[in-house]
Amino acid sequence: MRELLEAVATGEVSPAEAETQLRGYATTDAGRFDAGRETRRGVPEGILAAGKSPSAVATLTQAALETTGHALVTRVSEADVTAVTDEVADGVTVAHDERGRTLVARCRGDERPTVDAEVTIVTGGTADAAVAAEAETVLSVMGVDTTRVDDVGVAHLGRVLDETEELRAADVLVVAAGREGALPTVVAGLVDTPVIGVPVSSGYGHGGDGDAALAGLLQSCTVLSVVNIDAGFVAGAQAGLVARAVSDARHGST
Amino acid sequence: MRELLEAVATGEVSPAEAETQLRGYATTDAGRFDAGRETRRGVPEGILAAGKSPSAVATLTQAALETTGHALVTRVSEADVTAVTDEVADGVTVAHDERGRTLVARCRGDERPTVDAEVTIVTGGTADAAVAAEAETVLSVMGVDTTRVDDVGVAHLGRVLDETEELRAADVLVVAAGREGALPTVVAGLVDTPVIGVPVSSGYGHGGDGDAALAGLLQSCTVLSVVNIDAGFVAGAQAGLVARAVSDARHGST
Amino acid sequence: MRELLEAVATGEVSPAEAETQLRGYATTDAGRFDAGRETRRGVPEGILAAGKSPSAVATLTQAALETTGHALVTRVSEADVTAVTDEVADGVTVAHDERGRTLVARCRGDERPTVDAEVTIVTGGTADAAVAAEAETVLSVMGVDTTRVDDVGVAHLGRVLDETEELRAADVLVVAAGREGALPTVVAGLVDTPVIGVPVSSGYGHGGDGDAALAGLLQSCTVLSVVNIDAGFVAGAQAGLVARAVSDARHGST
Amino acid sequence: MRELLEAVATGEVSPAEAETQLRGYATTDAGRFDAGRETRRGVPEGILAAGKSPSAVATLTQAALETTGHALVTRVSEADVTAVTDEVADGVTVAHDERGRTLVARCRGDERPTVDAEVTIVTGGTADAAVAAEAETVLSVMGVDTTRVDDVGVAHLGRVLDETEELRAADVLVVAAGREGALPTVVAGLVDTPVIGVPVSSGYGHGGDGDAALAGLLQSCTVLSVVNIDAGFVAGAQAGLVARAVSDARHGST
Amino acid sequence: MRELLEAVATGEVSPAEAETQLRGYATTDAGRFDAGRETRRGVPEGILAAGKSPSAVATLTQAALETTGHALVTRVSEADVTAVTDEVADGVTVAHDERGRTLVARCRGDERPTVDAEVTIVTGGTADAAVAAEAETVLSVMGVDTTRVDDVGVAHLGRVLDETEELRAADVLVVAAGREGALPTVVAGLVDTPVIGVPVSSGYGHGGDGDAALAGLLQSCTVLSVVNIDAGFVAGAQAGLVARAVSDARHGST
Amino acid sequence: MRELLEAVATGEVSPAEAETQLRGYATTDAGRFDAGRETRRGVPEGILAAGKSPSAVATLTQAALETTGHALVTRVSEADVTAVTDEVADGVTVAHDERGRTLVARCRGDERPTVDAEVTIVTGGTADAAVAAEAETVLSVMGVDTTRVDDVGVAHLGRVLDETEELRAADVLVVAAGREGALPTVVAGLVDTPVIGVPVSSGYGHGGDGDAALAGLLQSCTVLSVVNIDAGFVAGAQAGLVARAVSDARHGST
Amino acid sequence: MRELLEAVATGEVSPAEAETQLRGYATTDAGRFDAGRETRRGVPEGILAAGKSPSAVATLTQAALETTGHALVTRVSEADVTAVTDEVADGVTVAHDERGRTLVARCRGDERPTVDAEVTIVTGGTADAAVAAEAETVLSVMGVDTTRVDDVGVAHLGRVLDETEELRAADVLVVAAGREGALPTVVAGLVDTPVIGVPVSSGYGHGGDGDAALAGLLQSCTVLSVVNIDAGFVAGAQAGLVARAVSDARHGST
Amino acid sequence: MRELLEAVATGEVSPAEAETQLRGYATTDAGRFDAGRETRRGVPEGILAAGKSPSAVATLTQAALETTGHALVTRVSEADVTAVTDEVADGVTVAHDERGRTLVARCRGDERPTVDAEVTIVTGGTADAAVAAEAETVLSVMGVDTTRVDDVGVAHLGRVLDETEELRAADVLVVAAGREGALPTVVAGLVDTPVIGVPVSSGYGHGGDGDAALAGLLQSCTVLSVVNIDAGFVAGAQAGLVARAVSDARHGST
Repeated sequence: MRELLEAVATGEVSPAEAETQLRGYATTDAGRFDAGRETRRGVPEGILAAGKSPSAVATLTQAALETTGHALVTRVSEADVTAVTDEVADGVTVAHDERGRTLVARCRGDERPTVDAEVTIVTGGTADAAVAAEAETVLSVMGVDTTRVDDVGVAHLGRVLDETEELRAADVLVVAAGREGALPTVVAGLVDTPVIGVPVSSGYGHGGDGDAALAGLLQSCTVLSVVNIDAGFVAGAQAGLVARAVSDARHGST
Repeated sequence: MRELLEAVATGEVSPAEAETQLRGYATTDAGRFDAGRETRRGVPEGILAAGKSPSAVATLTQAALETTGHALVTRVSEADVTAVTDEVADGVTVAHDERGRTLVARCRGDERPTVDAEVTIVTGGTADAAVAAEAETVLSVMGVDTTRVDDVGVAHLGRVLDETEELRAADVLVVAAGREGALPTVVAGLVDTPVIGVPVSSGYGHGGDGDAALAGLLQSCTVLSVVNIDAGFVAGAQAGLVARAVSDARHGST
Repeated sequence: MRELLEAVATGEVSPAEAETQLRGYATTDAGRFDAGRETRRGVPEGILAAGKSPSAVATLTQAALETTGHALVTRVSEADVTAVTDEVADGVTVAHDERGRTLVARCRGDERPTVDAEVTIVTGGTADAAVAAEAETVLSVMGVDTTRVDDVGVAHLGRVLDETEELRAADVLVVAAGREGALPTVVAGLVDTPVIGVPVSSGYGHGGDGDAALAGLLQSCTVLSVVNIDAGFVAGAQAGLVARAVSDARHGST
Repeated sequence: MRELLEAVATGEVSPAEAETQLRGYATTDAGRFDAGRETRRGVPEGILAAGKSPSAVATLTQAALETTGHALVTRVSEADVTAVTDEVADGVTVAHDERGRTLVARCRGDERPTVDAEVTIVTGGTADAAVAAEAETVLSVMGVDTTRVDDVGVAHLGRVLDETEELRAADVLVVAAGREGALPTVVAGLVDTPVIGVPVSSGYGHGGDGDAALAGLLQSCTVLSVVNIDAGFVAGAQAGLVARAVSDARHGST
Repeated sequence: MRELLEAVATGEVSPAEAETQLRGYATTDAGRFDAGRETRRGVPEGILAAGKSPSAVATLTQAALETTGHALVTRVSEADVTAVTDEVADGVTVAHDERGRTLVARCRGDERPTVDAEVTIVTGGTADAAVAAEAETVLSVMGVDTTRVDDVGVAHLGRVLDETEELRAADVLVVAAGREGALPTVVAGLVDTPVIGVPVSSGYGHGGDGDAALAGLLQSCTVLSVVNIDAGFVAGAQAGLVARAVSDARHGST
Repeated sequence: MRELLEAVATGEVSPAEAETQLRGYATTDAGRFDAGRETRRGVPEGILAAGKSPSAVATLTQAALETTGHALVTRVSEADVTAVTDEVADGVTVAHDERGRTLVARCRGDERPTVDAEVTIVTGGTADAAVAAEAETVLSVMGVDTTRVDDVGVAHLGRVLDETEELRAADVLVVAAGREGALPTVVAGLVDTPVIGVPVSSGYGHGGDGDAALAGLLQSCTVLSVVNIDAGFVAGAQAGLVARAVSDARHGST
Repeated sequence: MRELLEAVATGEVSPAEAETQLRGYATTDAGRFDAGRETRRGVPEGILAAGKSPSAVATLTQAALETTGHALVTRVSEADVTAVTDEVADGVTVAHDERGRTLVARCRGDERPTVDAEVTIVTGGTADAAVAAEAETVLSVMGVDTTRVDDVGVAHLGRVLDETEELRAADVLVVAAGREGALPTVVAGLVDTPVIGVPVSSGYGHGGDGDAALAGLLQSCTVLSVVNIDAGFVAGAQAGLVARAVSDARHGST
Repeated sequence: MRELLEAVATGEVSPAEAETQLRGYATTDAGRFDAGRETRRGVPEGILAAGKSPSAVATLTQAALETTGHALVTRVSEADVTAVTDEVADGVTVAHDERGRTLVARCRGDERPTVDAEVTIVTGGTADAAVAAEAETVLSVMGVDTTRVDDVGVAHLGRVLDETEELRAADVLVVAAGREGALPTVVAGLVDTPVIGVPVSSGYGHGGDGDAALAGLLQSCTVLSVVNIDAGFVAGAQAGLVARAVSDARHGST
């Protein structure tokens, strides 16, 4: 702890980051930011913008930048992006993915980690794009390279069979699927690596809004694990944890 | 009507059958038997044994035999089979399918119709066998020949792809599937003929007892029509109506 | 394959259509268009506009036109119609059905097939009109002539009984019904041909939004197959597959 | 009150009945019996045997007999019937309806009231028989004559149309229906009198156990009121209240 | 029938009304209007404005006026009221109840029937007002006088006990209740006449939107019949049928 | 800690109790027994017998006796009672409540605490008796005296109003109610003390098994807190915590 | 009563307040205001603004002010606040809490009671703030001081463990939690005082809108009582009743 | 392929195994056994005994032994174990786990693979034991060593905090939890490795049978993936796939 306090004294470490390292979280006007999650849990603490005001989003983004050097915000509106962009200091880059509704801010010099393992993200159709993009962003922040295999819904098996080699090349797969949710089962039947299924809130009538897809993934005849409907962030982060474990094993660090 | 009454007078037609032809249904101690359904609707009136006493089942079977020359009973217990066998007249044959829990009784000389069209019944696994057998029996009573393609669940796509030619040869398909219910969607993606999906009450936990399968079939990205969970009788009869329409068209009768 | 490539060389076939014939689908900016579905499956690949931007709808419509000569778009908004109309080439006709919210575009010279079998579409009340119109459009694209029997809800049996002859004339029926969903059961009790029921999302309170109608159709005491709530496209396409099978049988082509 | 106490003194009224008249309920070892319900509410307090031990049923039956002169017990087992029969005093008649699982006990000299209005009970099939019998018993205890119209399910409209005159003759109708629950709507469309629908717990799969029927009755396009699934007692009692109001009006007593 | 046609010839009866009397319904651009319902069923055919365009509402209102002399429209918007008011002929009065969202139009000289029986409508709180008003309007059209007992929710029993005399004076009661839906049970425990409960879509969280109230009414320990959530029209009409039966009995007409 | 270890050395405290005091739980063959819960949480750790073998129940009972001097077991079968009785040491008393299916074992000399506050347990009918008895037992173990007010269901308001004084005398009330669950709302409207509602799994059809009661309690128009269906243990323990807080305040100990 | 009427005569008591004291409620144009609830029940009658017009809210606020000296309004919009502020008499203070959407109005000289017991309100994250604020306001009106422990969600146990002393200091706790609703269980495991859990309507997909949190609280392995989703008012009022009981016991008043 | 056929010729490989290697599955009287799953998918094809007859289980076990050298059967009854034991050849070992209801049969000389990665299985209480045992067995067959951390439910946080080091030592964790399902969230907050949550069908009333636990896991504020209720097999197999990926990376094989 002495080291840390000396670093504060010399200005190498900001007081906010020091408090966070000591207590595990930062207290801001907009709530406590669990900055310690990243070291404790290995997953960036995502800031869920939905249900918060743009100014609260900007405040929490600041807290994340000050304590961890970067920030990941999900389900952002245009107003959130503007509020964050207006408020961040010079030298902070802000990347906004419209489709996935994510925003990543990063202080100058902050580097994302490097993970030597590959995650492939698979979608059945255009309705799955936003969920896949959210997963892609969290994986990118975790330092994992991703490949995309899109529009391979099972109504035409040729599309997914054409990609068998690509699917088998991944260390872990995230497969998003709405409607009847059959794609993750079909994909998991083709590979010998872990598959994480994400039900997507497409569909209509009975079983719509992702309910049929969730139930179908939970009932899959093959081996899958599942996250909640539209939970691209969770699926991406879980895939990232697996990828990092593989990468660490490759490099002998665990 | 005169002709009918004269036939009664001469004993060619039993009074019970005559009343049925005139009113459209027969009245028995165990309830009214809708004997006219077969001519009016083209589907044999199935007697659902579940929830009835064996003696009520036997009485209704008698009513069916007297008015239509044959009887189809579904969801039979051993006791039902015994009760029916004990009570039917000489010369009546009784066929009991244990797996599908059906019973077909037929008077001597009663002939099943001949339908020139083929129905293929497809199952994903052993849990679908009872439902498939029920469909097979009703189709047999309607005079339709059936082919079976079994155990081709989508967890291993090779099994269903190996049967593509067989699947394409049918005029109409009945596809039963439990768990996540993906098979009917995959099959319907391989053929250009009508597919009728039957969700099966397998599975466990969330979406178990056929709920996930039903929702998945209703949400299918391809074109399917669906019947209720475990409704082998309804799926078979609907496939039989389509087959008969095709057969009649082949032979110019409609 | 040589023939096809020569046809590309001479310009008889566009490269896009050739790729589609070879791979079974076309890749566009807005997603893969399953152009092969129509030959493989016998059902036009409907483009579901709901949830897509007007420009994505226009791009996919273009892909459909280039690869199959026509396009069927469902659940269109006014903006979708404008975007498609603005972008299609000269000589493409665009037909928009407001009630059914469908759009059909067709290249000059593209002819719809001719199916010699009749589908009758039956509705219980005005709330069923949009669903019926969607079914009617897909059947029209498949080349099937349709008859409409409207506003014959069972609260007044006289209305449906008056149409018995009309109902019996069809080769296959699509019956739409909201609220308690009793109409398909009553209609199926009057005819000896296949009936496909469509629950409609009318109603309110417990069982509203089509839930009671769906459950009622699945529990029907007569023989019916069912599609999801408001699934006019699926019901129409399934009826079209049956009609085509009957037509082919009439003309000896299968 | 003096009159009552004098009647107790002279033995015309038992102390138990006097306490009941004063407090409105009787206290027994097996619980308080709401003996006052019949005068206060016009409906016999039914003793629900299900979930009680045979001896508790017998004790409550005794309490009912002592305070009101008769007892109505529903959902009885064979053991309940034996327990009651063994324990009642000489001169008490015990009538047990096996199908409806009801028991009515009556002291010598106790007379059921006379209601001059008719209730018709309608069923769709044999599965509705127990519910109809329960309604019939409660109406009988209330002094109302009932007519039965059975097995007129809508899969064959002829059956119910044949009974139109009978249906129109009633002052109020109780219509029981399982599966899709369409019968009460069809019946209510034929008459101009109040119809009370009872969903029955038949059916299977989605919407089974009376769920589809309940939802269908609540969504009916015509005018109906509804009771819970299998609530033959409630439907009968409500019909009885209407019948009594009509009877009283006929005889000028209200 | 001759009489009717002669009345058409002399102009006493319009052709539209004559067709309606003969066929039982009128055909308009906006759908078939079941004008015969009122004579056949004793209940005015309500026009449900929700989900229809103002011009369709006006057209159906016209059809109702021409065939029955009056029209009852429920769930009207301001635009519907304007459209109807603009289009009706001179001499037609239009009454709009804002709270109940109903509209009643009546031709000059058209008289509502007179029913000699009283219905009391009871509410628990202000959230029940719209439902009660809808019931009141349909009863008024049926010629039944209504009394209102408002804001007597069971959280304060004194309020409802103070009204006991009023409640007992009615021939039949409609009791509306949202949230936990306890009021109809409490009221039914105080009177000896039929009670019809209407669950109201108030409440929040688990069991909100009337679900708890509906379930509570169906489970009531006392005798009640129930209509769907917010079904003021149905409750009012059912109460009206009972009231008319009582009135007819009072005046010896049945 | 030294004191404790010395007490172990001298035999005043058993090693098992010492370990429990140090670690907060005891480890047995049948699982870890959270013996510390009582001191940490103020609530006896109930042993839920349902789903455990009689011998496992006996083992855990032993662990509880050794570490806390007494044991409370809920949902016991006859076999559980026998197993416990056979195994406990001399001097341990075993009290079994058949109705509540509870068992309380107590070492000689172990005294239950004394709480100076009163809890009244209220039930609507006989179906609530088991739940009330379970609550009563846990309160007794916590040292709280309870009063019972039984069979005061709201179908007859007189019963509950007669008990108003009794209800107002309590410091806190537990009110159990099945079917429509109206009783806790009515009781809470009569008193100015905390009311804890317990929904009971009585009822049938829609909303049966306690679902309607739970939803009704959560929607109550008055102020209540609620526990899960049939959770007599939880309701009793929560009431006991309130009672103890009141008692401590009375005696100045907090 | 004479005293009260004399006070009216001398003007000490307004006629409205007198009527309220005599009847227990006040009748206004906007409904009956249960002014007596506060004395009868010990809980301020909250006026739920949601679903009422601003002018109705203002009228009921007036009724509350005139009969009880203060008013508590929940779920207010900006328009409600304006309407109330415009209409209240001089000397009435109006306090509006934006986050909790509550409004408290108080006549000059009206004093809130003093309760000598402490309630701690605990939240898991920012989504719980509105619910906590609503609870805080009702407790403030009841005269109870509250402490807040915020943002201690269980994903990082350190946050809640750091607050253990604070949590143990309270007499009763209100714990709000959305998503998986684990916080109240964890908190209740740390204290020996009553905990009231409030599920919050955060979350998404399966179990969203508070459904998972509610189910989780009802299933808690520890002792909790629960209120409906987002029911901050009810949780606060129930905690207030417990606090007042403790305070009264401390000061010997009960 | 030649090599394989020569091996068949020389008897090194049985014809059954050869067919399986060529087609990917074996056909038996009791259904097709997907023997290729293990090589294709890396997960042993589990035979689900539930719903199959003992003799069918024995037949499928034989097929598995002949084609893969070992067999894993889940949800076995005593009768299944007897049937398998009676039928297997000499030299086959049969291991039966009563708690997890699994059976593993292995031919002499068949070796399980070795995976150099550790999976820790965590349970909240004794109700989770069967699920944990099922996961343990599948992991054992996959060659993965497992550690157990049992009875650490969150009602007493000390239990789980005491095990933090143990939890952090694993490469991947399977956490089973019933009731409110809070344990996987708490565990995942303590480690930086992948956590797979298994909801367990304990609990009662609302959210019982694992529903609350499933919803809670899907809503978790931390990063988790989930399997269906009681799906110990799936959770174990998914953890095994992750462990094998890590092991392969450690040893450079991928």
